[in-house]
Order: sequence, then structure tokens, then C-alpha cells
Amino acid sequence: RRYSTGTRLSDGLLFRQLFESESSTYTYLLADAVSKDAVLIDPVLETVDRDLKLIEELGLRLKTAVNTHCHADHVTGTGLMKTRLAGLKSAISKSSGAAADVLLSEGDRITFGNHYLTVRETPGHTDGCVTLVTQDEGVAFTGDALLIRGCGRTDFQQGCSKRLYASIQQKIFTLPDRCLVYPAHDYLGQTVSTVGEERAFNPRLTKSLEDFVAIMNNLNLPKPSKIDISVPANLVCGVHHV
Amino acid sequence: RRYSTGTRLSDGLLFRQLFESESSTYTYLLADAVSKDAVLIDPVLETVDRDLKLIEELGLRLKTAVNTHCHADHVTGTGLMKTRLAGLKSAISKSSGAAADVLLSEGDRITFGNHYLTVRETPGHTDGCVTLVTQDEGVAFTGDALLIRGCGRTDFQQGCSKRLYASIQQKIFTLPDRCLVYPAHDYLGQTVSTVGEERAFNPRLTKSLEDFVAIMNNLNLPKPSKIDISVPANLVCGVHHV
Ligand SMILES: [Fe+2]
Ligand SMILES: [Fe+2]
Repeated sequence: RRYSTGTRLSDGLLFRQLFESESSTYTYLLADAVSKDAVLIDPVLETVDRDLKLIEELGLRLKTAVNTHCHADHVTGTGLMKTRLAGLKSAISKSSGAAADVLLSEGDRITFGNHYLTVRETPGHTDGCVTLVTQDEGVAFTGDALLIRGCGRTDFQQGCSKRLYASIQQKIFTLPDRCLVYPAHDYLGQTVSTVGEERAFNPRLTKSLEDFVAIMNNLNLPKPSKIDISVPANLVCGVHHV
Repeated sequence: RRYSTGTRLSDGLLFRQLFESESSTYTYLLADAVSKDAVLIDPVLETVDRDLKLIEELGLRLKTAVNTHCHADHVTGTGLMKTRLAGLKSAISKSSGAAADVLLSEGDRITFGNHYLTVRETPGHTDGCVTLVTQDEGVAFTGDALLIRGCGRTDFQQGCSKRLYASIQQKIFTLPDRCLVYPAHDYLGQTVSTVGEERAFNPRLTKSLEDFVAIMNNLNLPKPSKIDISVPANLVCGVHHV
């Protein structure tokens, strides 16, 4: 049962994975099945209407819209959502340098009903990257730190491959093997992984630190097409004056 | 808890949802966590390598590759997979008119370890469409019969909107509200729904039969770009001489 995965979340926890195809971003909706309080992780500006419609249909009350980091590839939907939903609070890590209603640090909890997500700081892709972990350590939302069989790039936005390696090894790979890994992106149609699988099969993270740094230094990736728009926008919840 | 959904499958059942972006097709991998026997639903030719790699990494033994129907929008991967994996059997409904090792009919079971999927015939999009249901009725793989907030088109390939309406009402909407709905396609980044949600919110299936038929008659969709290649190929597992 080592790599066992049903996409099994704990009792009373509503869960929905959503995808934005232009930026290949996953947005995650979690809610307390009883109280209906909800959290949205990494909403994308272009899919705000879809997400709000689903939240309404499911009868949920969205309390917090949180970004795992200041994204460079898409504009966040948190600011627009705040204009639509009274009482909604945006959240992002303090180290991101971005503005939000709630600035998160290591160990902070994002509470919704009887559930909460715990913040683990996992810098390296950016300074302000966090991984959000359910209270039973059954699910980790890893943002752009750990991707399925990959990891976030480290060649811009305070990227540091040594720091990313340490973050993943110390803050993510210390979670139980069964812990589901839901990243912020996937480009190959993969929807979920587990900590056990990534520890065994991630082509970058199964390497030594030295080899990892060499791999990351030689990716030669093009600059994200939207970075000059996205990063300034995401420093202010995706919209100015919110 | 009516629309409650974690993507919760039953105990000992491994599950993975995979996506092929060109045709927006979902492929589903299910396996018995103990015996490691596996079933793959709707594999796509272009993602055979990805799927086989995952199956190998997870240590699974793929017994059956099943198509929910003879697809018009992509070429199935079952034939190519059979050339790679000894003992793999292809399956499709008898009513599809396609060739395969196993021809399925209402009530048939696709067994893998201690688990099985039960075949429900759900024609209307094509004559040979089936919905595959886990033994606890917790998950339904609805193919192109029921989509998330939509349904398969009925304007080619023996399509019949009256028949599709009856199939969904009688064979899918009779499943428990909590039953997860995993379709063959989604074009809006939605990954899963539930029978309860679709009964309440599907904009087509909440209508009367007459209104449904009128909607389906007025979609004015373009012909699928790959239909002249896909359908002949899918009548023989996606490849000739297999
Ligand atoms: Fe990023
Ligand atoms: Fe189809």
C-alpha cells in the first residue's frame, strides 16, 4: 500500500480540484461539509466566475482565498472575488512581499469550520512560497515548490535551487508517504501524486543537492510570457485598489 | 451533506485521474491496492507512454483497458497498449460495433482484484455508450453520456437525444446523490461532480424531455475535427492488426 492513493480526504471535508488551461493552474476548493465554510487555493482571474458559481451551487461560504505564492504565470482571482463576496479575506505569505488581508507565516492555520490548513514555508521557487497541509497530514497543497515528478523553476523571482531542495526535503518529504500532493500546476495531465511517489520517482528530488542544483541551472526555460503583468498585479491581489 | 464530495473512493481502491489536453479527455486508472490488478478507462493514444510509466511506477498489473464508447474526438490507446503489455485485454460494449477482446453488456462486471466495475448501458450519445459503476455505487464513470453540467452531443454516430435523456434519468440519476461523477471529457477545468449535483444543477438534465430535445437539436456544433480518423480507428482498438 505504499503508493496507495485514492484522492481520499478526511471525513466531512468537501474538496474540488479545478483547472485553468491557459496557465495550467490548479485551483482547489475545500469546505467544511457541516458549517459550509470554505477556502479557495490559488484562484485564477479568468475562472473567477466558474469558481463563484460552483461555490454558490454547493451552498458554501467562502472565508479565505489564499495564494501559495506570488504567481508569475497568471493573475490571481483573489482581488476580484473580494469585490463579489462580502467578508472574503485574501491571504498570502508575509515573505511574498504582496499585500493581502492575512499575511501568513510558518505554523499559521487557515481555519474553515472544524478544519484547518497549516502553513509550511517552502521557499526556493520564490521567497514567499508556502505549502498548505490538512490537519491529518493527508493532503499537501504544494504550490510551485513540489510539482508532480517535477518542481518549480528557480531562475527568477528570488529563485534559489538550494533553498528549494531544502524546503522540499525538510518540509514536504517529511510528511507521510500516503499524503496526497496537489500542486499549483501540471502540464502533462497529471492531477495528483503522493509524497511516497515523489520521494521514489521525482526525477529531480531523488538526486543529490549538487545534482539538483546542476539540473536547475541548466533548464534554459523561456521567461513566462505573462510575468511582467502577473507579478505586479499579484502583489496587490490581482487588482489595484482592493 | 447533500452535495458532499471528497473524491473519496472505497477502501483499498487506488485511483488516478489523468487528462489529455488536445481532446480534453480524462483517462482513469483504478487498481486493487493489494493484488495490484488494474483497469484503465478511456486511454488516449497520445498519452500511452505517460500512462504506462505511471502503471509501472505504481507496480500495477493492467488487466483491462476499457473504452466507454467508440470515441469520435481522439484515437484510443488500447490497441497500442496491448502491444506493450502481455495479457492486457481491451473491452468495449457489444453495441458499439467495435472489435475488442471483451464485449460488454448490461450488468457485466470488469473485475480487478477484489474490486469490480458494473456496466450500465447508457446509449444516446452513441448506441454503445456505457457507464461504469464501482461496486459500492460511490463512483460512476459516465463516458460521454453525462458530463459535468452537460452531456454528450447527439448529432452524429447514432446519436439520439430522447435515448440519452432516458439513459441518464434511468441509469445514472438513480445512483445515490453522493455518487461521484467522472466523465470522459471536460472543457472548463472541472474534474468531478456528483449525481446529486447534476440532478440539481445540470442545465440540460433538469429540463423536461421536450426541452432537452429542443436544446440538443439546436446546439449547432461543428463536426469533430478528428472524427474521420478516430471512429474507423476506434472500431479496431485504435490500431489495425491488433
Ligand atoms: Fe510560480
Ligand atoms: Fe464521444
